[in-house]
Amino acid sequence: MLCQSAAQLGIRTTTVERSSECPAATVSHTHQEGDWNDPAVLRRLAAESDVVTLENEFVHADALATLESEGVPVYPSSECLRTIQDKLVQKRSLKTAGLPTPQFRDASSQQELEAAAKEYGYPFLLKRRRNGYDGKGNFTVNSPAEIEVGWNHLDGDNNPLFAEKFCDFQAEIAIMVCRSITGETVVYPVVETIQRDHICHIVKAPARISAAIAESAIEIAEAAVSAVKGTGSLGVELFLTKDDSIVVNELAPRVHNSGHYTIEGCHTSQFENHLRAILGLPLGATSLVKQSAVMINILGDSEGPSYPAGIPEALAIEGIHLHLYGKDKSQSGRKMGHITTISDSIDEALENAQKAAKLITFNRR
Amino acid sequence: MLCQSAAQLGIRTTTVERSSECPAATVSHTHQEGDWNDPAVLRRLAAESDVVTLENEFVHADALATLESEGVPVYPSSECLRTIQDKLVQKRSLKTAGLPTPQFRDASSQQELEAAAKEYGYPFLLKRRRNGYDGKGNFTVNSPAEIEVGWNHLDGDNNPLFAEKFCDFQAEIAIMVCRSITGETVVYPVVETIQRDHICHIVKAPARISAAIAESAIEIAEAAVSAVKGTGSLGVELFLTKDDSIVVNELAPRVHNSGHYTIEGCHTSQFENHLRAILGLPLGATSLVKQSAVMINILGDSEGPSYPAGIPEALAIEGIHLHLYGKDKSQSGRKMGHITTISDSIDEALENAQKAAKLITFNRR
Repeated sequence: MLCQSAAQLGIRTTTVERSSECPAATVSHTHQEGDWNDPAVLRRLAAESDVVTLENEFVHADALATLESEGVPVYPSSECLRTIQDKLVQKRSLKTAGLPTPQFRDASSQQELEAAAKEYGYPFLLKRRRNGYDGKGNFTVNSPAEIEVGWNHLDGDNNPLFAEKFCDFQAEIAIMVCRSITGETVVYPVVETIQRDHICHIVKAPARISAAIAESAIEIAEAAVSAVKGTGSLGVELFLTKDDSIVVNELAPRVHNSGHYTIEGCHTSQFENHLRAILGLPLGATSLVKQSAVMINILGDSEGPSYPAGIPEALAIEGIHLHLYGKDKSQSGRKMGHITTISDSIDEALENAQKAAKLITFNRR
Repeated sequence: MLCQSAAQLGIRTTTVERSSECPAATVSHTHQEGDWNDPAVLRRLAAESDVVTLENEFVHADALATLESEGVPVYPSSECLRTIQDKLVQKRSLKTAGLPTPQFRDASSQQELEAAAKEYGYPFLLKRRRNGYDGKGNFTVNSPAEIEVGWNHLDGDNNPLFAEKFCDFQAEIAIMVCRSITGETVVYPVVETIQRDHICHIVKAPARISAAIAESAIEIAEAAVSAVKGTGSLGVELFLTKDDSIVVNELAPRVHNSGHYTIEGCHTSQFENHLRAILGLPLGATSLVKQSAVMINILGDSEGPSYPAGIPEALAIEGIHLHLYGKDKSQSGRKMGHITTISDSIDEALENAQKAAKLITFNRR
């Protein structure tokens, strides 16, 4: 989607992925096959580029630092990536900046987990410090017996873990923040995100929260992005607790699933503003085009080919914006596309998006 | 822009152009270099494609007919192309269907032009039957002395010409019509188009005309598309005469400059609906997202490299949607990009689009 946005602005893109059968290769001007953690591969990319950016946070910070040391503009910076990639370091940075997070502590042994249990009570969360996403790398510890189960499930002997107090939230909310290399910052509306099996399922914009809570959430999100020295579009995931306070869950240093609705929903999408931000161009308006927008992810239901069914039926529903990513294979829970609807009635937007999303299947049984 | 729209739907595109340095090559999945009038080149394209379409009307109808005879789905059809490519045949088809057009007559000699002058008076129009666009291939004959000038200017000895009565219009209006291979047809709002030096300069949606006139224009546009057996998105250019009647000027059997505003301005763009139409998918809603939209073309001012200036200044204007086509060279009057603004106030949309368009230059002196 970054490449699609770039094309509209006449910006040519070169992408790097391990395979040439990846979605990005179908929309970028040129594609290079290679491992993005290999500095030689990144150098080849940089040789063709005025600026290097990324759309996932798993590129090795060291590889990016190599490019930076050679004078290549890389946004977000390796420093930002390094902070965010390690969720424990990320949380410590947020805490140091005075921002509210759930309580957390290092958990380099099962003994420390027992100490965490004593401090936080059950349930509490056990998380991998690195490479977690969509709930992968997380484990909910419900009882003393589950400490060992969780430790083994996440392979604590080989993966650094940390523990986090369970946050009994009333809602999960998220905010896209876009921060330019010039320092200019814009903030998108606060949205409500509804997860299913730990995967983002529905995004409702705007979140149904009071103006005061929204203001507080925006202030915290902006401060969080500053704390990690973010550049470009970043997703800030927050909890709205049952006593109406805001707690930072985690940050994504990139365009984010909770911001896909901005393509049709807002005057400037998170993708275009990311490009503007890393090129030092003025940022665009982030307000909603209509009163509301709803985004629903289309997930694969099983392993298999990626041929979608139900498209004609879905497109027959008024006002559907269908995005299919052209991934080569479907997997259970894999994000294969999404649907956005915009409307002055959020109920109408939600109803139409849900109807359409139900109709599109990838190997659903 | 068709390729960009296809990418969103997960549709892969292969493009054919004489050069590989064309804008389409930067946004299609694969690009083939070749002459699109060569059946062998088209066959190579068809071998990779489920359906073949076009985004200009100058592809030889015979070459397309060859593909059709081999069983390749081609939309619009060679028959439609053949009718539209020859503007005299096009006008005869419209007249046969009972649709209002300016008076016209064949002009295969200067003597016939004198007869046309007697019938229509001065000024009248002299036009090439084929390959005219943006006013190229047209000549306004203002006096008897200009008959020979016009004949020579358009090289009447080597290009078939026709004559047309001058239409003293109060406004030029246009309508995008999209007709699916299933027969389903949708119509976009009536827009006003303002030309400068015979090139589309500004499109205002909706046109400021009465509901009755709009209804009549829409009825005529739909009938015109039926008359030429159009498939996909077609642009219908109309004159609103000083006595408030509607006259068909001409048709474009493709996505059209007067419909570029639909990308941000309407719930479904002319590009997406074209794709839906040629794939037999249900057509999307064509209503405006806000009360109004304005599109302004960005033209080159002289021959030279295509590096644009003024982008940061233009993007600083609220609500600008900038499209740059990545053409390799600028020429005077060449369409290098466009700007769209959407707003509940058409005056605001126009003001912002004009401000921004003035700032972006390609070799302007």
